[in-house]
Amino acid sequence: MAQYSAVLDGVFIALADPTRRAVLRRLGRGPTSVGDLARDAPMTLPSFMKHVRVLESNGLIRTAKSGRVRICELNQERFALVEDWLTEQRRIWTDRTDRLERFVTNPKEEQ
Amino acid sequence: MAQYSAVLDGVFIALADPTRRAVLRRLGRGPTSVGDLARDAPMTLPSFMKHVRVLESNGLIRTAKSGRVRICELNQERFALVEDWLTEQRRIWTDRTDRLERFVTNPKEEQ
Repeated sequence: MAQYSAVLDGVFIALADPTRRAVLRRLGRGPTSVGDLARDAPMTLPSFMKHVRVLESNGLIRTAKSGRVRICELNQERFALVEDWLTEQRRIWTDRTDRLERFVTNPKEEQ
Repeated sequence: MAQYSAVLDGVFIALADPTRRAVLRRLGRGPTSVGDLARDAPMTLPSFMKHVRVLESNGLIRTAKSGRVRICELNQERFALVEDWLTEQRRIWTDRTDRLERFVTNPKEEQ
């Protein structure tokens, strides 16, 4: 559980940056080289590479050398962590609404 | 768009911490006083208050004084920002799959 929580911390941190979200968006359309991705980013290559490493170390993308080029690919499964967390929150809210409804319908049941 | 992006940065940063996620989870069951929330957190009250302020300043919770007690309440609408962002990513992936399928079915169409 603590490990899952740490992974979730990292995923949310990785998502908390517009450059990194733009990379994820671009990779949603298919694998792309670091060079091509960097061309769209308004910063130096070393600065851009830091963002790539944050995404990779938190499992949102995978990268692999192909000859002299490094190709980045989305790891869609990682997004499920965030979706699962959101679904769990919604479940808690729904449970609360259900409890309130039961209380309104039959107050004695809850005492 | 830049403003939306900055708001999203803040929401993801707010979610990137286990204490803050625990507060959101607890508030999903209903409004709670800061004192009650702090009791469950393994830290000093000033440290805990910093987390409350991060959640409040990024719009995930609202707080209001009620007599001598400060009550926190979830702002469920803020979660929709994250859900919308995830939905948009999934749309991009689906579009890609659809394009690939069309290409396999009718390669000439894509040229």
